[in-house]
Amino acid sequence: MKDLKFAVIGGGFMGKAHSIALATYPMYVWPTPYYPQRELIVEINDMLAAESGQRFGFNRAGTDWRQAVEDPEIDVIDVLVPNVLHYDVVMAAIEAGKHVICEKPLALDGDKARRMADAAEAAGIVNQVGFNWRLTPAIQLAKKLIDEGAIGEIRSVRSFWLGEFFNDPSVPLVWRFQKEQAGSGALGDIGSHAIDFSRFLAGEITEVQGVQQHFIKERPLPGGTGTGVVEVDDATAFMVRFESGATGYIESSWAAPGHKSDAGFEITGSTGSLSFTWERMSELRFYDGRDAADRQGYRTILVGPPHPYGEHFWPVPGYQISYSDTKVIQILDFIQAVSGEKAAPQTTFRDGLRSTLVEEAVMESARTGQWTKVARD
Amino acid sequence: MKDLKFAVIGGGFMGKAHSIALATYPMYVWPTPYYPQRELIVEINDMLAAESGQRFGFNRAGTDWRQAVEDPEIDVIDVLVPNVLHYDVVMAAIEAGKHVICEKPLALDGDKARRMADAAEAAGIVNQVGFNWRLTPAIQLAKKLIDEGAIGEIRSVRSFWLGEFFNDPSVPLVWRFQKEQAGSGALGDIGSHAIDFSRFLAGEITEVQGVQQHFIKERPLPGGTGTGVVEVDDATAFMVRFESGATGYIESSWAAPGHKSDAGFEITGSTGSLSFTWERMSELRFYDGRDAADRQGYRTILVGPPHPYGEHFWPVPGYQISYSDTKVIQILDFIQAVSGEKAAPQTTFRDGLRSTLVEEAVMESARTGQWTKVARD
Amino acid sequence: MKDLKFAVIGGGFMGKAHSIALATYPMYVWPTPYYPQRELIVEINDMLAAESGQRFGFNRAGTDWRQAVEDPEIDVIDVLVPNVLHYDVVMAAIEAGKHVICEKPLALDGDKARRMADAAEAAGIVNQVGFNWRLTPAIQLAKKLIDEGAIGEIRSVRSFWLGEFFNDPSVPLVWRFQKEQAGSGALGDIGSHAIDFSRFLAGEITEVQGVQQHFIKERPLPGGTGTGVVEVDDATAFMVRFESGATGYIESSWAAPGHKSDAGFEITGSTGSLSFTWERMSELRFYDGRDAADRQGYRTILVGPPHPYGEHFWPVPGYQISYSDTKVIQILDFIQAVSGEKAAPQTTFRDGLRSTLVEEAVMESARTGQWTKVARD
Amino acid sequence: MKDLKFAVIGGGFMGKAHSIALATYPMYVWPTPYYPQRELIVEINDMLAAESGQRFGFNRAGTDWRQAVEDPEIDVIDVLVPNVLHYDVVMAAIEAGKHVICEKPLALDGDKARRMADAAEAAGIVNQVGFNWRLTPAIQLAKKLIDEGAIGEIRSVRSFWLGEFFNDPSVPLVWRFQKEQAGSGALGDIGSHAIDFSRFLAGEITEVQGVQQHFIKERPLPGGTGTGVVEVDDATAFMVRFESGATGYIESSWAAPGHKSDAGFEITGSTGSLSFTWERMSELRFYDGRDAADRQGYRTILVGPPHPYGEHFWPVPGYQISYSDTKVIQILDFIQAVSGEKAAPQTTFRDGLRSTLVEEAVMESARTGQWTKVARD
Repeated sequence: MKDLKFAVIGGGFMGKAHSIALATYPMYVWPTPYYPQRELIVEINDMLAAESGQRFGFNRAGTDWRQAVEDPEIDVIDVLVPNVLHYDVVMAAIEAGKHVICEKPLALDGDKARRMADAAEAAGIVNQVGFNWRLTPAIQLAKKLIDEGAIGEIRSVRSFWLGEFFNDPSVPLVWRFQKEQAGSGALGDIGSHAIDFSRFLAGEITEVQGVQQHFIKERPLPGGTGTGVVEVDDATAFMVRFESGATGYIESSWAAPGHKSDAGFEITGSTGSLSFTWERMSELRFYDGRDAADRQGYRTILVGPPHPYGEHFWPVPGYQISYSDTKVIQILDFIQAVSGEKAAPQTTFRDGLRSTLVEEAVMESARTGQWTKVARD
Repeated sequence: MKDLKFAVIGGGFMGKAHSIALATYPMYVWPTPYYPQRELIVEINDMLAAESGQRFGFNRAGTDWRQAVEDPEIDVIDVLVPNVLHYDVVMAAIEAGKHVICEKPLALDGDKARRMADAAEAAGIVNQVGFNWRLTPAIQLAKKLIDEGAIGEIRSVRSFWLGEFFNDPSVPLVWRFQKEQAGSGALGDIGSHAIDFSRFLAGEITEVQGVQQHFIKERPLPGGTGTGVVEVDDATAFMVRFESGATGYIESSWAAPGHKSDAGFEITGSTGSLSFTWERMSELRFYDGRDAADRQGYRTILVGPPHPYGEHFWPVPGYQISYSDTKVIQILDFIQAVSGEKAAPQTTFRDGLRSTLVEEAVMESARTGQWTKVARD
Repeated sequence: MKDLKFAVIGGGFMGKAHSIALATYPMYVWPTPYYPQRELIVEINDMLAAESGQRFGFNRAGTDWRQAVEDPEIDVIDVLVPNVLHYDVVMAAIEAGKHVICEKPLALDGDKARRMADAAEAAGIVNQVGFNWRLTPAIQLAKKLIDEGAIGEIRSVRSFWLGEFFNDPSVPLVWRFQKEQAGSGALGDIGSHAIDFSRFLAGEITEVQGVQQHFIKERPLPGGTGTGVVEVDDATAFMVRFESGATGYIESSWAAPGHKSDAGFEITGSTGSLSFTWERMSELRFYDGRDAADRQGYRTILVGPPHPYGEHFWPVPGYQISYSDTKVIQILDFIQAVSGEKAAPQTTFRDGLRSTLVEEAVMESARTGQWTKVARD
Repeated sequence: MKDLKFAVIGGGFMGKAHSIALATYPMYVWPTPYYPQRELIVEINDMLAAESGQRFGFNRAGTDWRQAVEDPEIDVIDVLVPNVLHYDVVMAAIEAGKHVICEKPLALDGDKARRMADAAEAAGIVNQVGFNWRLTPAIQLAKKLIDEGAIGEIRSVRSFWLGEFFNDPSVPLVWRFQKEQAGSGALGDIGSHAIDFSRFLAGEITEVQGVQQHFIKERPLPGGTGTGVVEVDDATAFMVRFESGATGYIESSWAAPGHKSDAGFEITGSTGSLSFTWERMSELRFYDGRDAADRQGYRTILVGPPHPYGEHFWPVPGYQISYSDTKVIQILDFIQAVSGEKAAPQTTFRDGLRSTLVEEAVMESARTGQWTKVARD
């Protein structure tokens, strides 16, 4: 067992999630070819760096991501900074020959995302984008069932990430509401996950037709005086065509009352169906049309040991795993690529690029009112 | 209390449903200004007529709908024949000054439907199209809550009628699969209900963009030798824009495994949400964003006496009503218009026309790939 | 097809339910060996009799049940009067050689119930007690699955009938709250149904141990001045032992907020489980422990054509049936016994007796605090 | 912020859970008065000790719990060894003046448990028993709602811990199936949690009446040749009386097919109700009988930031927490007692004792068939 030394760039919400995952990874996954070390955390000033280092149990703390990238002790750069900074940090890390994890969205536009994916592949480093939602055991089980033919040929897909966390108009105008900083609103922030797990389950999306909505037009400035204009979508919904011929509809909204963390899908195939929502993260609903006629019905499967990644968590189905446990699976997936157990993680930079290209096509289609082809990656 | 004498034209599935409704109407709704009499049933031959008359408890049975239309004893013509015959029977009944109920779809195309609606209105007769699904107490409760502002302003609507009853490729090529006889497939057969209750709850639909799918291309001929081509859609899905600015997505499929009678909606407003499926016909799910922060959550409301039409059925919420009970409400709604208690039924021929116009726009948009405006009625 | 002429004694809630069932029976069940005629309805005075006759569509209306019992035209006496009168009407009807349906509870005590069952059997008439709840298709499906071994050997049973309809202390002190008139409270009124379907599914109950609760001690007198003492239980719960060795727990309450018509069960066997609540009357949940390890889960079966009695109702699973439709099944079950298609209805007077004997044992055990054997019928 | 140095005795399933909790506690709960240090882990041999130390991130590893107890560096002894060893380790730790956490059941019988509770209280050390299930945010929310009067006066409680993990007869005869080692079977192993959260929510249990079942009488010996007798219950169910006058029923089984980790309750009060199952750990169902008549219904509350302990986990309701996160709350509760923020943890040794006394009364009642009073603690 070798050490794998991580530098985590950013100590906010994602810093917390990744620190928990790095600390608990060997406790869940044992034995392991690599033991992830929380070597260095980078924050924007000394005080935050020191606090994050202590709280999250890092050996060292710093304030300069360039130093981290150049640090010969570091094996992995884990990029958890605001979206607008992803490109610079990631490209420098690739340049330095590090393995790289980057939170989604990989970049603010397809051009940058393509350059990042190309550079990472050319450098031969392990690259992973943070599409942890598709790594949820229930979603992995859905994939397994689809691959085994359990629902036949996929006919339609409805996917969604619906929340209400920005429905409150008193939430101030932070960077997420500014086009230059965020790229898009609900579409990129949460819709990107729905795009990713739709692609994962049903294959590539070739064409889209979308609508975007803006409900809360102005928000108070963070300082406290006056208001500013919200530049991004509160909700984006779009029809899709898959390469396979299946059709679909993908919804994202951060202003959908009643939906708290309602990310999921309903997939209808020729002989069965699957449905899932993160709000019941341990459940996959599966309908098998080949069950006997008098005992057909959606099965509520509680994930556990017999299911993907289940052997690492708790010994009883339904014992519950959490948001951060999907990050443990992300680390496992990454380490399996580092160790050579698999060729690449499940969610590479190229997946980040493809999601971005779908988002760009959606935004164009919403402007033009036309079905719009997704650009080739 | 006066008698209201019905001639029911057609003794199949719908004849059964309407007979049950007419027989049980006074048992549920009492007192009533009109007592519906099952006076005459019309079937295609003497044997079927006699059998239907006895089974469904009619005073008389016949084989000629023209005689029924001209019969001076008859007050109401209830048209339950195959779609292609609606126009002739209904126009004759209007001509004869009868009140008319017509099963949906009102007509095979918008032109005919418009002429039927115009003629009925010009004649001043009570006219009703059989959109009984929107009369379901839980849907009526949804409408009441929306009108009371319980979910704020409607932002998005997802409606659906998903079944699997024609997923079996051995179902023969009956008239429902032929364009000339049926007009369309899943779209008109079941999607029309979803269009109707979407309009009822969220207002007029102004623009659509749809896709249509054909899964089972050929079916055995009813005779038994060889197969014929299925000419209509197995599934149609479309995005919609409402007059109000809300957006939506409406799905219909009769080949969606796992979905048995999954007709319903999810409506998201600015302060709350509603959802419903016919598979749990007695339940309306309602989220009130104005509940206290620590006790917000979707409420599962079991319909009963405190809800629309509830006083007529059983004294306990959740005691369950059935498909035919929505037909009882349809008869009540019709009789209230006959008695002058209300100006018109909830579902007039004009509603039938509007649904048809939406369907026509959907089919055009699927051909052209363009957002398509719904024609004015 | 012969006529079967019914005299219905009592035109209240149950009169409505049985009239609906008699009127719709041939519409649902066709062909049928007997056509039930609503010949005579008996109410307590001329005005009510006339009104009931018209509303419920009877040929004749009267005020004297003795005349009905002696009327040679009448084939069946359907006894829907208050509990305290069951004995006299039923015994006279048996004496007159009529077939008899009697609402539950058959009698106020086991002695009378035994005499009624003995007399009916000695007379060789078809006798049925109104335990319609067990006739619900989902419960009949549960029985079928159990008999087929789908859950293995039954280990435990939890049954319940929980409502809140008498939780309101302003409900006046009607006969249901008086021991002499009603026998018991929630136990006999609704718990009896839970006892019946528990016996149906899991076999005879041999021993019980119960507790009874009284929440609302006084209620306003119906007249309007002063209050009177509630003499019966608001809630009764008891543990049971089945002949088979299985154990169980049966709850009944009419003062359980949140439970509207929550009648059902959870049955655990050695290889599977079943659960049901009337609040989702069309659903049976079934867990098959022999499903493959990675796709085990409770199935939500929507009852329809492939299930017991399903062919008589609607062609699509989940199309919903209602309270009165269970009464249609009750009439069908009765007619099958009259026609000789089966030896006896599913719910004979002896079932009424057995339920009463269980209730008596429960009340005794609540008094003594001891496990109490159920008397032999 | 001071260090709080833990010695964890036992590196199995519970060692994993506690290590994860100790590592992630400061990441979730920040700032914190004490920073828990994983100082020392004790296992039964050098190899296991070394492996556990590395995997779970401890500073030191050993094989002698007595050394740990006497180690002056250690502040807390965390006892996670098999049940039969609890007494010796805990008493020595108290003697040494350490704070002590002990997994449940505290002891194999009430006498020992009483001596442990008395000793801990006399020594004035912080003592906690591992009833983490009641610390689940949804259960803590239930308690808060009850205390606020949201369901009125509690009338009845149904609690349960139902699983199927030992339904497989090929599971070998480990110590859990032996009376001397385990004390009891399903009752103590999982029923104890249901007893604990029932007491927590509804107050002390004064009297019980139970039945015990044995389904799998023999199991293969762990060695591999022959079988041995299972000496403990597979299922125990019992009626209870609470001090408050409420009644209840508590079920525990480890051989209940379909139930995976089905631990929860249904509590009915005079004006509302609550229900919960661990299988949907993030949901509390709450019925408020004071909602307006036409919009009453069970609310499905997704726990999150507005709920107990919610501020420490993820920013969105329904983002899911896990089994080990309830152990984080347990550590928080413990540290709050160490720091003096609260007088004692929520689950002290006295709670362990009380649960044991209820279990003893249940076993006695099952033997005698009598209602049995729970001994005073």
